[in-house]
Amino acid sequence: MNTGSIPSFQDVLDAYSRIRYLVHRTPVHQSVSVNSITGSELFFKCENFQKVGAFKFRGASNAVGLLSEDEKKPGVVTHSSGNHAAALALAARMNGIPAYIVMPDNSPEIKINAVRNYSGKITFCPPSLEDREKYSREIIGRTGATFIHPYDHPHVIAGQGTCAYELLSDFPQLEVLVVPTGGGGLLAGSLLAAKAMIPGIQVIAAEPLGADDAFKSFYSGKWHPSVKPSTIADGLLTSIGQINFSIMQQHLNEVIRVSDEQIIQAMELLWERMKLVVEPSGAAGLAAVLAQPDYFKNKKTGIIISGGNRAFQL
Amino acid sequence: MNTGSIPSFQDVLDAYSRIRYLVHRTPVHQSVSVNSITGSELFFKCENFQKVGAFKFRGASNAVGLLSEDEKKPGVVTHSSGNHAAALALAARMNGIPAYIVMPDNSPEIKINAVRNYSGKITFCPPSLEDREKYSREIIGRTGATFIHPYDHPHVIAGQGTCAYELLSDFPQLEVLVVPTGGGGLLAGSLLAAKAMIPGIQVIAAEPLGADDAFKSFYSGKWHPSVKPSTIADGLLTSIGQINFSIMQQHLNEVIRVSDEQIIQAMELLWERMKLVVEPSGAAGLAAVLAQPDYFKNKKTGIIISGGNRAFQL
Repeated sequence: MNTGSIPSFQDVLDAYSRIRYLVHRTPVHQSVSVNSITGSELFFKCENFQKVGAFKFRGASNAVGLLSEDEKKPGVVTHSSGNHAAALALAARMNGIPAYIVMPDNSPEIKINAVRNYSGKITFCPPSLEDREKYSREIIGRTGATFIHPYDHPHVIAGQGTCAYELLSDFPQLEVLVVPTGGGGLLAGSLLAAKAMIPGIQVIAAEPLGADDAFKSFYSGKWHPSVKPSTIADGLLTSIGQINFSIMQQHLNEVIRVSDEQIIQAMELLWERMKLVVEPSGAAGLAAVLAQPDYFKNKKTGIIISGGNRAFQL
Repeated sequence: MNTGSIPSFQDVLDAYSRIRYLVHRTPVHQSVSVNSITGSELFFKCENFQKVGAFKFRGASNAVGLLSEDEKKPGVVTHSSGNHAAALALAARMNGIPAYIVMPDNSPEIKINAVRNYSGKITFCPPSLEDREKYSREIIGRTGATFIHPYDHPHVIAGQGTCAYELLSDFPQLEVLVVPTGGGGLLAGSLLAAKAMIPGIQVIAAEPLGADDAFKSFYSGKWHPSVKPSTIADGLLTSIGQINFSIMQQHLNEVIRVSDEQIIQAMELLWERMKLVVEPSGAAGLAAVLAQPDYFKNKKTGIIISGGNRAFQL
């Protein structure tokens, strides 16, 4: 597979064979009280229990696993202030190779510590996309490391698709699947898996109102960047990737936008009723059900809880 | 079985047959990073995922299930500011009978709401044991309801024992079992199950330093009450029950006392590394491993996370 090409369901299956003994097959939780509050039947795929606390480890380990031995040796590089950075650092360490992580110097301490914890080599940069890319290019030039994009990369997308693959293998009765959407890697992978496994399933992207570039892009049919995004869901700020936009256009059913209040309400339900620590981005799927309850009424709905990396509060 | 008698492992097995389709068979979680931090191999039995968010539902549903039809009709009564109140309310509702709950008027709102949510009929009283007992007797006199003690009751103890029964059925290789200890119902039930199933297993009571009546009672061989207890673990304030003390004396290996700092550190690990919402009392087991790491070094250790009812923090 060419790294610029659009991945297929077969790539998701290949990714699953490659990474199934590296990733956790995360559990699916249900809650009678959340079902009763929302009037639907919800199946939560708990990627907050995944290694590094987020689905990102799936895509990172698939991408590293697909490098040739010659490509592996100099290591991998990415720029990210989020879960992809920690995921790539761990995937690299498990392969015995270095991971160079370019992080904005205003990154939260919990994310910096996570990358350090997994032996990532951090380079801090000013917090602009231009600087992140410049610093990354400099590292690539100096080390020969391979750049692994956080979401707009076919191997990453195929890896992320293994999450929906597991969920729908376990629960083939699902009628709807809701996926938190930022750069769209998880969404694109989920679409490849879901539409191949259950052709009639409705797949919904859940996106913050304050970062609704996927909404604008999908309904206008023309790619829009994320401009001055503002939301509590710090993992969903980025623009939808080009490959991911193309997969969305082909397969997606709807984008549902959620307010920060709905995200917080979803986090509270997941905490109080299900005892799950979920980061704001990870609660966007349930927030979509709270935003448009009629859409989900009495439907068997899968929701991906994408991650749980929140700083501890006593 | 007489309600004043000491229960046996057979009572735990009977309880399991009675309640197995009413309770969740809660999952057992492990964490590579918590194992590496503690130097041991830990198996966390997640009773924070139990109905009502705590193991208490096991004992309450066994006790209600063992009432005769004539006893059931007028309902049940207890005094509790904690998880037993919510558990008894739900167990009663599932049997279609009333639950009268006497609660101190300074109970936290989250606990009051939980009891209301499960249709418990609340009577508030001044926050002293004398008043709680007086108000309970008044309700019993007026309604004919049966009093279900939160922990010093053989049917409750047998029900709580089903938690360790499930854990040790799933993981018969365990060498140590750590149980948070307040009134001692969970500890006593766990001892009955563990020592019958794995005679060589070490069972450890984890108790707050600021409420260490079980420690004093166990090592002096003479029952001590809990006097002016002070700890963040609000579920472990109470004195050890008489039946439970007797079972402790026969079977327990050690009491390990934990500081509030160790409880908080355990909550933080469970949050950050395992994404679990755990109440302070529920973290006492892991706190015991942090308090005496050498005891657990390289040992396969089961830890009961007894509950997860903490108010939401954004």
